[in-house]
Amino acid sequence: MLLSKVDENIEKFITDLNDDKVSELYKKISSGKKLRAKLILKIAAKEASRAVVLASIVEMIHAASLLHDDVIDDADTRRGQKSINAIYGDKTAIMFGDILYSKAFYELCNFPKDISQSISEAVSKLSVGELLDVELSKEFNSDKEKYFDMIYKKTASLIEAASYSAAFLAGAQSDKFALYGKNLGLAFQIIDDILDIVSDDKTLGKPSMNDYKEGKTTLPYIYLYEKLDSDEKNRLLSLFKKELNDNDKKWIKQKMQATGALKECFTLVERLGNEALNSIKEYKNQDLEKIIKDMIDREY
Amino acid sequence: MLLSKVDENIEKFITDLNDDKVSELYKKISSGKKLRAKLILKIAAKEASRAVVLASIVEMIHAASLLHDDVIDDADTRRGQKSINAIYGDKTAIMFGDILYSKAFYELCNFPKDISQSISEAVSKLSVGELLDVELSKEFNSDKEKYFDMIYKKTASLIEAASYSAAFLAGAQSDKFALYGKNLGLAFQIIDDILDIVSDDKTLGKPSMNDYKEGKTTLPYIYLYEKLDSDEKNRLLSLFKKELNDNDKKWIKQKMQATGALKECFTLVERLGNEALNSIKEYKNQDLEKIIKDMIDREY
Repeated sequence: MLLSKVDENIEKFITDLNDDKVSELYKKISSGKKLRAKLILKIAAKEASRAVVLASIVEMIHAASLLHDDVIDDADTRRGQKSINAIYGDKTAIMFGDILYSKAFYELCNFPKDISQSISEAVSKLSVGELLDVELSKEFNSDKEKYFDMIYKKTASLIEAASYSAAFLAGAQSDKFALYGKNLGLAFQIIDDILDIVSDDKTLGKPSMNDYKEGKTTLPYIYLYEKLDSDEKNRLLSLFKKELNDNDKKWIKQKMQATGALKECFTLVERLGNEALNSIKEYKNQDLEKIIKDMIDREY
Repeated sequence: MLLSKVDENIEKFITDLNDDKVSELYKKISSGKKLRAKLILKIAAKEASRAVVLASIVEMIHAASLLHDDVIDDADTRRGQKSINAIYGDKTAIMFGDILYSKAFYELCNFPKDISQSISEAVSKLSVGELLDVELSKEFNSDKEKYFDMIYKKTASLIEAASYSAAFLAGAQSDKFALYGKNLGLAFQIIDDILDIVSDDKTLGKPSMNDYKEGKTTLPYIYLYEKLDSDEKNRLLSLFKKELNDNDKKWIKQKMQATGALKECFTLVERLGNEALNSIKEYKNQDLEKIIKDMIDREY
């Protein structure tokens, strides 16, 4: 499977850096689902060897962003394992992130400018997105546009750039694949925001209903707020950034169902998924269609 | 003066990012001496407009590294002003650094691969150098090789890459200019380490004799340790990572002079300076020679 070649390739990049500490740190990163790598491999299947390298670069960038993200969020765990900042401290996590970023940019220079600039622009966007996330977390946010702008930058932009770049590599219509990636990325983040509410701690690999406590007014909360009456709005606001007890959690979950706030999120995920499918329908790429269909049909 | 064009160009890059918060943050960064920009402008004088862009990129990278450096060192001040992490917190400083790095890489894609890879490789090195600095700061380090490897990566590598790239741009012998930059960078860091010991707080814009307290066994301390007798060695070791009182500071300064430890640092700075001059002597570039001569003849 090509995905294992991506892992091998990243290990080669790490070995190039010729530093024992860096190799040790890399071994402590838990491997994720590699959505971005999968997309690149599927979109640029006919350019397999180049696609593996590009996928490795994008996964290194994603790993770097998560290292910094975990420092920002003071996260102790990542994918159910201890985070690098939890084991080695913030300083090491910041620098290790910088090392992965810069090595990724170094390797990116071997690709056409369209690709290297698409990816590096996405890194600027995702960093601005993180900054927006921090800003928005200061108070309750009822502004949907701000939320969409933030998740576009923070999550969708790199998936968009990965899809664009893979299509460019394969000589396909890169703008259409970019749109596929963007809509997939937006839907993906909204699902993540839903899962924080509907999943249990074990499934998530981290405490559930953590977003609201952290000051993140995700889309389900924005929709919920719109649908509550004045007393309920005040109750929801009073819980913002608070440690939630079981009673509060139960109330929020019940209201998320009763008001249709969650349903509205699912409907949007479906709409984004269909837009993604539409943008590349002429390619009849069953792998890419399956990614979207599995996402829409997912059990919660 | 071209140096003001560098500032203008960086401002244009910041404006491109189209985010109010980013523009606000950029205004809070205090401008430095711009050594790297000066070098690039002087080396690639005949390619002035391209040199201005390259200088802007390298100064953005340098600024990004300082943002992360200040988070790593918990530094409240930078160039006598409050640091970004002191004003806005670590999270914002980390992300703002990532934004500057990625925008710099984006713009770097407009240059030949020799240049973009030289600069991005230097960023990997400087991040590894920071990591080594953190590792070395855990205990007293008497190993000169480890110190030189660390300062080469942390400080000299970007100056080396800037010189290399500027020479490449101008069609000069880039390896010779790389050597000039590397030796200048090493000498520059050793002077910085000397200044921490011989300067007062006001001149430094930060507390003097801070390095040793922070766990940094800089070259003067390594030389000093070699020259002390066994009792004095123990006294020096006992002060490692401690808050130094006036008596301790006086003792260290006196021993630095009496043992010739400082003198040995100056001698090395002179040797590195001469090597830098030698590597580019055929170019008879008075500006570049003056940078080295001013450094060697500096009053402490």
